[in-house]
Amino acid sequence: MKEIQSIKNQTIKDVKKFHQKKHRDQQNKYLLEGYHLVEEAVLAGIIIDTVFIDQKGYELYHDWLVEQEIDTYLVSHDVLKNLSELPTPQGIVALVNKQNVVVESYRGAWLLLDGVQDPGNVGTLIRTADAAGFSGVILGDGTADLYSSKVLRSMQGSNFHLPIISGNLIERIKHFRSAGIPVYGTELNKDALPYKKVTPVRDVAIVLGNEGQGVSQAVLSLTNQNLYIPIYGKAESLNVGIAGGILMYHFVNEMNN
Amino acid sequence: MKEIQSIKNQTIKDVKKFHQKKHRDQQNKYLLEGYHLVEEAVLAGIIIDTVFIDQKGYELYHDWLVEQEIDTYLVSHDVLKNLSELPTPQGIVALVNKQNVVVESYRGAWLLLDGVQDPGNVGTLIRTADAAGFSGVILGDGTADLYSSKVLRSMQGSNFHLPIISGNLIERIKHFRSAGIPVYGTELNKDALPYKKVTPVRDVAIVLGNEGQGVSQAVLSLTNQNLYIPIYGKAESLNVGIAGGILMYHFVNEMNN
Repeated sequence: MKEIQSIKNQTIKDVKKFHQKKHRDQQNKYLLEGYHLVEEAVLAGIIIDTVFIDQKGYELYHDWLVEQEIDTYLVSHDVLKNLSELPTPQGIVALVNKQNVVVESYRGAWLLLDGVQDPGNVGTLIRTADAAGFSGVILGDGTADLYSSKVLRSMQGSNFHLPIISGNLIERIKHFRSAGIPVYGTELNKDALPYKKVTPVRDVAIVLGNEGQGVSQAVLSLTNQNLYIPIYGKAESLNVGIAGGILMYHFVNEMNN
Repeated sequence: MKEIQSIKNQTIKDVKKFHQKKHRDQQNKYLLEGYHLVEEAVLAGIIIDTVFIDQKGYELYHDWLVEQEIDTYLVSHDVLKNLSELPTPQGIVALVNKQNVVVESYRGAWLLLDGVQDPGNVGTLIRTADAAGFSGVILGDGTADLYSSKVLRSMQGSNFHLPIISGNLIERIKHFRSAGIPVYGTELNKDALPYKKVTPVRDVAIVLGNEGQGVSQAVLSLTNQNLYIPIYGKAESLNVGIAGGILMYHFVNEMNN
């Protein structure tokens, strides 16, 4: 196994460039941390470029890495800390190829994110869409990058469970509508309908918006109906992740019970 | 207006001690950041000890501070940054007296947190309980401190809208049950009941647990019924904040629609 002890090593310098979205987009690769997520990637058939582990990671995962025939570097604790973007590094960082997502059908329930900026919110929403049995998630312009470390961390591997694609929401919504699939926007507007008034259907698209601005007017004007979640107390609004959870489970429960 | 330019100033050193829970508990005070939250505190009748503002905050809030007769220090940007626990300081930090929460009735819906550790989760859950019109929240042992900066930030002032108390959950649950109020625990156990099977009632207590361990066995054994949220996809679990949002809106919607 190859070893790297210095953070000035050129390979390490090159790999650190993947902390930047631009570089991830150019190279079509990203960094994944933690054994659990790396294992999920392998199980999902994702091609792993290289793995960096520290001594502790080596002891824990060596046999598995050999078995998977993954190109591995044993690195010092300092080097691993340098590569890691987590407060507490997990002992393993992998350079991973982005998935080539092929969507076979836009049937079922889809979640559309219109400029959701906070990576924790985006990751949690994808994890919840996975839990709720949604068919996929579409990330519109201005939404946090799927491959940023915070999104990956809060998503907990759900990107390996359902298709997540980036795309222009306007075009995508027109596509849903021409296929006869209802599209529901969300807004904090009393002209919108309380979500419980909508009878869930199997094929549906739900749009959630930016933390401060909500769903853009351009998108809201293209939906079949816009929904709101009533506020019964004195809070000004709900966190977008929470709002998404309430709406997704409203739509999915009825389908499955 | 008094001025402080140095982070070595004794007043600043003393105030920084409130970053520690132990000191907050001893003094019964905490630090609150941002104009919006400080304004909410004043409107809620909370006694403000002292306010520290930088030049920008001074220009924006000076008239309001004079009007409120709040003891104010104009401080350098460095001093404010030193006092602040936010990634982006908001120009105003207030030393605030903890509320003396008096609960008049345990009727209505209550949220009980059993060792929820992540401050962002605790803050979001309280904000959601507020939005859902809950009567109050009880923080059990091991739950993140209400007055930590991350809880305050994600709570967005909801602590000024509904009573939040700390207490022993075992005793509190016995109290609810002896008053004939149903207590629902949550667990990822198929022996539990899917939450949709429970018909909401006006008076209710819902218990959510630790991110990794869930609700403790001691608590689960005292509830009327334990509930779970079905997972339809491949995610292993839901974030506790999301689970709380789904459950609270299940119980509250039915009451109000």
